[in-house]
Amino acid sequence: MTKSDELAIVLVSGGMDSLTVAAIANEQYKKLAFLHLNYHQKTNKKERECFDKIADFFKIPSERRKIVDMSFLNQIGGSSLTDQSIEVSKYAGDSDIIPSSYVPFRNTHIIALAVSWAEVIGATKIYIGANEEDSPGYPDCRESYYIAYNELIKQGTKEGNISISTPIIKMTKSAIIQRAKELNAPLELTWSCYERSDRACGVCDSCALRLRGFKELNLEDPIQYIS
Amino acid sequence: MTKSDELAIVLVSGGMDSLTVAAIANEQYKKLAFLHLNYHQKTNKKERECFDKIADFFKIPSERRKIVDMSFLNQIGGSSLTDQSIEVSKYAGDSDIIPSSYVPFRNTHIIALAVSWAEVIGATKIYIGANEEDSPGYPDCRESYYIAYNELIKQGTKEGNISISTPIIKMTKSAIIQRAKELNAPLELTWSCYERSDRACGVCDSCALRLRGFKELNLEDPIQYIS
Repeated sequence: MTKSDELAIVLVSGGMDSLTVAAIANEQYKKLAFLHLNYHQKTNKKERECFDKIADFFKIPSERRKIVDMSFLNQIGGSSLTDQSIEVSKYAGDSDIIPSSYVPFRNTHIIALAVSWAEVIGATKIYIGANEEDSPGYPDCRESYYIAYNELIKQGTKEGNISISTPIIKMTKSAIIQRAKELNAPLELTWSCYERSDRACGVCDSCALRLRGFKELNLEDPIQYIS
Repeated sequence: MTKSDELAIVLVSGGMDSLTVAAIANEQYKKLAFLHLNYHQKTNKKERECFDKIADFFKIPSERRKIVDMSFLNQIGGSSLTDQSIEVSKYAGDSDIIPSSYVPFRNTHIIALAVSWAEVIGATKIYIGANEEDSPGYPDCRESYYIAYNELIKQGTKEGNISISTPIIKMTKSAIIQRAKELNAPLELTWSCYERSDRACGVCDSCALRLRGFKELNLEDPIQYIS
């Protein structure tokens, strides 16, 4: 496959989904830029470490790495990920209930930053690891939301030539892990736990989904858990 | 006219356009909340003063006033309003050229904050003083952009019941001033200059548009200019 000469931005959180998306983008584009958002969640230092290691793995030069501080979201409130007075909800199985870790309209802020940066550096594609299964009930993880966002970008940018790609949006967690394996993406460098930064808790929503994905493939998760 | 019992957010910059929009919203809603963004432009302190005075005028209680720091936009760059190394462009008449004061995709960030806050406080309407004439060539000041944004909000929020209102988007500057006068809105409390905070420069894009509006109505601008 011939790779595109254009520049693509990948939103890299430090988790498995965005790692897999980075590996997919790396197959399709010669030049990638990595964007990482620090929104002062409990595990932000650990996720930043993972971002740095993943960016090193993909040989992203420093001028194409950007960390943006999202602390302004703390001023809005309404989420357990950014408000330490609200307890993180435990995984309660498949559910349409929006978990307490919901930051209202969060992905809109994140993608807006990516689009602004894309205009500045001349990127035409934005890869994001949005996933419907990973975020049950999050309205801004559905495909219809990204269709609407692409129209907004078309209307709201100078050239109208930037678009979002969501290559794993319909994948199950096990399919994402399998794709990462096929692309030799370093899953051992990722972090998913919402609660802990030393070893993963294994019980928060994010850990539960991750562990279930590995179990379905009869694979062992390469990261460490407390139990 | 019966006012709505629901809560509306108004984006209040401290300028004439958002003052007029606040006065229009005040006719239609019993309860208003005011949102002000500080994106570290040259005149941010002056605009904040104007915001406070305008909020006092409309008797907005403190819990329904919010100031959000937009300094994260400085990390993205690409604009003379936030980057002191780029000179602010002088007004060069009607033009489709995008001025150097353009922050890529800026209104998307601003509205995303308003939508997030709306979800938290239960507001269903967001008023913004976007205006096509005021911002020649800014893609995110066109009506089609707001139509697309309303669809994004519908797709990306829990209830899907929040929408944006742009009551002055097609008005000329003189029509906006006239509407403010009809509603007894305090134009003397507003600030438009991009360059100065003591007395307005009279020559930047924003001053030129403002002065032309008053001139067309044969009215005197109640604020002070340097010449």
